[in-house]
Amino acid sequence: MAMEFLFSANKTFSLNYFCEKYDAAKSSVSEDLFHLNTTFKQNGLGEIISNAGATGGAYFIPKITTEKTQEFLTDLKGKLQAKERVLPGGYLYYSDLIFDPKITNMLGLIFASKYAEKKVDYCLTMETKGIPIAMATANYLNAEVVVARREAKVTEGPVVTINYVTGSTRRIQTMSITKKAIKPGKRILIIDDFMKAGGAAKGLVELVKEFSCSLAGIGVVIDSQNPENKMVNDYFSLLKLKSVNELTGEVDIIY
Amino acid sequence: MAMEFLFSANKTFSLNYFCEKYDAAKSSVSEDLFHLNTTFKQNGLGEIISNAGATGGAYFIPKITTEKTQEFLTDLKGKLQAKERVLPGGYLYYSDLIFDPKITNMLGLIFASKYAEKKVDYCLTMETKGIPIAMATANYLNAEVVVARREAKVTEGPVVTINYVTGSTRRIQTMSITKKAIKPGKRILIIDDFMKAGGAAKGLVELVKEFSCSLAGIGVVIDSQNPENKMVNDYFSLLKLKSVNELTGEVDIIY
Repeated sequence: MAMEFLFSANKTFSLNYFCEKYDAAKSSVSEDLFHLNTTFKQNGLGEIISNAGATGGAYFIPKITTEKTQEFLTDLKGKLQAKERVLPGGYLYYSDLIFDPKITNMLGLIFASKYAEKKVDYCLTMETKGIPIAMATANYLNAEVVVARREAKVTEGPVVTINYVTGSTRRIQTMSITKKAIKPGKRILIIDDFMKAGGAAKGLVELVKEFSCSLAGIGVVIDSQNPENKMVNDYFSLLKLKSVNELTGEVDIIY
Repeated sequence: MAMEFLFSANKTFSLNYFCEKYDAAKSSVSEDLFHLNTTFKQNGLGEIISNAGATGGAYFIPKITTEKTQEFLTDLKGKLQAKERVLPGGYLYYSDLIFDPKITNMLGLIFASKYAEKKVDYCLTMETKGIPIAMATANYLNAEVVVARREAKVTEGPVVTINYVTGSTRRIQTMSITKKAIKPGKRILIIDDFMKAGGAAKGLVELVKEFSCSLAGIGVVIDSQNPENKMVNDYFSLLKLKSVNELTGEVDIIY
C-alpha cells in the first residue's frame, strides 16, 4: 500500500480498491491510511490526503520537509567541495553522485515536492546526466520521462529538431525529441543536472512550445553564479556554484 | 522501515538500530519485521532474511515471483508488438516504455532478483537508453551506476577508452569510462536495453577487465534472434525479438 501511494502521486485510490485488494473492512483500511500518513510525514516523504464523501478515496503528495532537504543538500555540498573533484579547465566532476540511486532518489523527491501540485505529465531532460534525476523525479510525480538527444537516432523515428545557442560558448548546437514521445496539451517539467548560461534549458523550453505543451517549471541541481543573467528567467536550482579554483582545488558552493 | 530495506539490499540492519530509531522494544520490531517479510513476499518484491544470534539483524533480498515476472513481461511484449512502433528500416520504437518509471522499476526488480546474490557494486551501462534500467536495477541492488559514453567529455576528467566493433554493421566505435568512476576489485553487472550481435556488450566486458574488476553478469531487456551467435556468451535477456515486418507492421517477440 505504501509503495502504491509513493509512486502514484496525485492518483486517487478509492477505499473500496484497498478493501477488495486486501480483503479488509473500510474501517481497518482507513486506520491503515492514517498510520501510513503519519509514517510518510515522519519520514519526510509527503502526505496522504483523504477525500471525504460517499465513495471516499485518498491520494499521495510528495512533500519533503525543509529539515530533510537542508540536511541532504548540506551533505551533498560537502561532497561536491572535495578537492579531488576539480578537473583541468576548472570543471567539477560529479557523475558518481548523479548516478548513485540513493542521492538521485533524494533529488527526485525534492523536485517532486516542489512541483507536486503542477500535475506534471512529462519530465523532460537532455542526455546524458539529466536522465537519472529526471527518472527519480518522474517516479515520485507519477510522470514519464522524455529525453532530448544531441543527435537524431534511426531507432527513434521522426524527430523534432531545433538549433540552440549555448549561452557560455556561443556555439550552435542541435537537440532532437522523437515526435511520438510527447502528446500535445500536456504539462512538462524540465529537469537537468547543471545550468551555466541556460542555453540548453532555453532550447528545451522552445521544444515544449513546438509540441504544443505548457511548461510546469525548470529544476536544476546546480547552477553557476556566472553568468548572472541566464537565458531563461524562471528556474529553481538547489545549489549554486560560485567558483572553482583550479590551482588550489577549492570549490565554493552556496546553498 | 519498508523503504530502508527495499533500497538497501544485502545490507544487514541490527534490531537495535530499529529499536533506537523507532523507540520500540525488540519484540515489537521483530513482529514488524515478520509482517514486512509477509508483505514483501505477497507483493512479489523479495524477502527479509533474519540472522539469529546475540546481536540479531535482518537484510532484504529482492526476489520477484515467477508469476509477477510472467505477467509483467507478457504485458510488455503486448505493448512492444503494437504496429505503430515499427519504424523505417525495421527498427522498433520503445523509448517511451524504457523511460516510464513504472516499467523501469519492474525491469530493475527483475534484474536485481536475478543477480541479488552476486553482491554487485556497480551496474554498468552504455548511454543513453540503458541508463534508466541500470538506475532501477542499482536501486534494488544497493549499487551505483556507471555509464560508458560514446565520446569523452571534458567534464568527466581522465577516461579509459576502448575501441570495439559493432557485431551487426562491423563498424569501429569508441566507448569511454571516467577513471574515477570505478574502483578496482569490484563486481560489475552490465545492463542494457537491447542486444543485437553483442558488440557493445563485449566492449563493456573489456572495460570491466581494464578496471581490474570482475563480471557479475550481463542483463539485457531485449535481444534479437539474429544473429544467433552473439559476441558474448553468457547473458540473460528478458524478451527475444524474432522479426519485425516493415511492410505489415507485424512484430514477433518471444518471451
